[in-house]
Order: sequence, then C-alpha cells, then structure tokens
Amino acid sequence: MRVLIVHAHPDNKSFNAALTQSAIEQLTADGHDVQLSDLYAMKFKAVLDEDDFEQRNNVEQFHVAHEQTYAVEVGAQAADVTAEQEKVMWADLIIFQFPLWWFGMPAILKGWVDRVWARGFAYYTGRKYDTGMLRGKLGLICVTTGTSADTYAPDGIDGSLFDTLWPINNGVFRYTGCDVVEPYFVFMPAKMSDSEREEALSGWRAKLHNIDNEPRLQFHADTDYGDNDRLKPGVIAKSGFQHNA
Amino acid sequence: MRVLIVHAHPDNKSFNAALTQSAIEQLTADGHDVQLSDLYAMKFKAVLDEDDFEQRNNVEQFHVAHEQTYAVEVGAQAADVTAEQEKVMWADLIIFQFPLWWFGMPAILKGWVDRVWARGFAYYTGRKYDTGMLRGKLGLICVTTGTSADTYAPDGIDGSLFDTLWPINNGVFRYTGCDVVEPYFVFMPAKMSDSEREEALSGWRAKLHNIDNEPRLQFHADTDYGDNDRLKPGVIAKSGFQHNA
Repeated sequence: MRVLIVHAHPDNKSFNAALTQSAIEQLTADGHDVQLSDLYAMKFKAVLDEDDFEQRNNVEQFHVAHEQTYAVEVGAQAADVTAEQEKVMWADLIIFQFPLWWFGMPAILKGWVDRVWARGFAYYTGRKYDTGMLRGKLGLICVTTGTSADTYAPDGIDGSLFDTLWPINNGVFRYTGCDVVEPYFVFMPAKMSDSEREEALSGWRAKLHNIDNEPRLQFHADTDYGDNDRLKPGVIAKSGFQHNA
Repeated sequence: MRVLIVHAHPDNKSFNAALTQSAIEQLTADGHDVQLSDLYAMKFKAVLDEDDFEQRNNVEQFHVAHEQTYAVEVGAQAADVTAEQEKVMWADLIIFQFPLWWFGMPAILKGWVDRVWARGFAYYTGRKYDTGMLRGKLGLICVTTGTSADTYAPDGIDGSLFDTLWPINNGVFRYTGCDVVEPYFVFMPAKMSDSEREEALSGWRAKLHNIDNEPRLQFHADTDYGDNDRLKPGVIAKSGFQHNA
C-alpha cells in the first residue's frame, strides 16, 4: 500500500511527531511505501489566493472554483499544489495527523485542503461522494486533544469528538470519494505518563498494522438520496450526525 | 453596540463582500460602531508558528499553549495578533463572514482564530464556557455555500449545516464565553438572480437591525455538567449535536 501522511504540528518534539514517526516505522516494517508532507517543515503556504494561479480564466473577478478548474485543465496551478496532488494521486491511504485546534484542523492543514483538494482535481460537477475523483483511496484522521475523553463524550461539555470530526471525514474525505477509516484519538498526551504514551503509540501502530480490517465509517450510498440530494422517504439516516427531517 | 466584522474572502467583488458592505451600512445607520478586519486585504498571517513570539518561555520545545500564555503575560505576542485582540476586546458583537470551504472556515480565518484566540487571552484553565474570558460578547456567523439548502438539510447529502457549524459556534464562540446568535445562511449566491441576491442582503440587514431580539443558540449552563464535564444524570442534552450517552 502507498501511504501519504500529511502532518501538521509546529513542534518536531511533539507527541504528534512521535505518532508520525511510529506510523512511518510500522508501515515501512509492514512493507508499505510512505511519503510524508510535514507542512510546518515545508513552510507550506496555507492561504488560497490569486498567487496560486499562473494563468487566469478571468482576471476581472477571482472566482475560486472556476479558477481552480481552469488551472487544473491548462496546467496553471502553483508548483507546490501540483506536487501535493501528485502525492495524493500516488497514495492509497491518506493520513491527516494533527492536534485538534479550536475543534478543527490547524490552519496550515485546512489550507492544504483548500488549495490541494482543488475543483477539477478532487471533485467536479457530478463527481462527488460515490463518484468523487479520489474514489478508491482511504482517508484516516489521527488526532490529539488538549482535554479529556469525558469532555468529548456525546454528553460531554465539548461535544462528541466523532461528530466534531464529521465535517472532515464526510466533507473532505468522503465528499471526494474516499472510504474513511474510523479515526484514532489520543486524549491529552501532554498529561500522560511515559507508559501511557507508549500505549497510545502502540495502539496507533496496531491500527495501521491492521489497516485492511479496521472498521470503516458508514455513509449512505448515492442511491439512498433522491434527486434533491435528500434521503429518500423510508431511508433511515445512519451516517454521522445526519438525522431524518 | 461595537461590532467587529472578520471578513475572509479573497474576492472583493464577491457576494461575501456585498454582505459585509450591507452589514457596515446597516449597523452604521443604526448607530453602531464598526471595525472591519478584511483578512485577505490585510494579508493576515494564517499560520501559528514560532515567529509569533518575540520572547519565549521555553526555547527547547515549542509548546503552543504554554508559549501563548507566557506571551500574553509578558507582552511578547506578535504585533498583528495584539492588534486583533484589541479589536476583539473593544467589540460587543463579533461577526465571522466567510464562504464555507470544505465544511469549515477558509484557512485564513481558521488561522486568525488559532493565533488571536490565544490561551491567556480568550480562555485559560477554569475560564471556559460560562466563565470564558470573552464573556458578555456576542458571536455571529454569516456564511455562503456552493450547494443548495437541500444538500445541507438534516437528511441532506452534505449533512445539517447547523451541525456543520456547531464546532465553530460551540468551540470558538461559546468555549470562550460568548453568547451566540443563530447563524445566517446564504445558499448558492453564485446561482441567484439579482432579486434573490437583493433579498438575501435584505434578510441580513434585517437580522442585524434586529440583533437584540434575534434568537440565541441554546447551550447548557456549566452547572448542568458534573465534575467529569459530562451532563449530570437526568439532564437531557439540548445543545448542538450533543446527545445523552
């Protein structure tokens, strides 16, 4: 299997760094090929803007989706975006490794998605979800938190971590056609003992070793939706935080 | 009322720009004071990194939360961060104006939160939710989408937009003590007729004109949670995508 790890932590001595190092070791030992995009080390440009386009479809107005589509077509994307897209196309499994900042991805990773997951590359009209352009790939989140598992329980004060990550699992991975492995959580590594950290790293290695059989998240097939993109009458909502109207 | 609009769209002819312009006009006409942080125009630095700190607590390892706390204490934050924090402190109402990109904020806005909402400024140990450091302020999201209202219905293929925004409403605004006004949605402005756009702008102006009486989102009081930060037995989950375990 070919694995791309997109790593977004500013400290190379962080627990996130240890998780990524463990992943590389385990995956390599298991015979997989690994590429790493260490976004902070690369000083990856986070902000999608007009500088991303070497040639423009419309210089009067900057319509992001149109310019992305045009740039993919004519080969006018920024070099750093193209380089990341080549890694994505190469990969069978894409791992997002990040600390949960403000209930989401650090800006450098969000910007990687904004820029690399371009219209015409990752999705297009009629090419979403089951027919997304990254179909056949696997997505997987590995995330660390600053607060406890209790706070992220479904009845916890921070709200369900599973639901908090749903916009990424559904909206970034599944939207573009990926299947999605259940995420791996490490709660409060900063407060862990050495043995607890070792256990958390072992769990991550075990999950990756077992990647073919790890549970996938449940999504509705496109055929469960009517022409209006809402669940057909009688279909019971089962994915993420969807519920029947 | 003093209003800070944090605006995150790269095109100054966009519908987002029209929404912000309408907001400034309406709020000014109603006698409010308005400041605008137009993040793209400011070329706001999106990535929280070591360059944000003029002086360090620990130069051996970059622990984000510790360095933020220290920098707030000793006045060693980056000048652009301090300038934004002064606007936040000044404001009674903080509006996030953005297009929904990948089910969340554009990276430039996420980075504004990562950097400006610093530990020691917006929250601290024991200063979250009801006791958050931005208590007394109002938060409000105004968002545009690229797909239809049906796709963002609770049974829609993209999932509930209300739930999609919950990590921001709960995790950014409420977490730091703000009360939160129900968000304003504009679905697919790119496909709207002129009269539909006018209607969407009017609706936004009307909401701002009526801001004192607009519905607030429901959150549990801190007293609904036990010592473990989970809802006390017998308390029925009522906020966001929380549910009883």
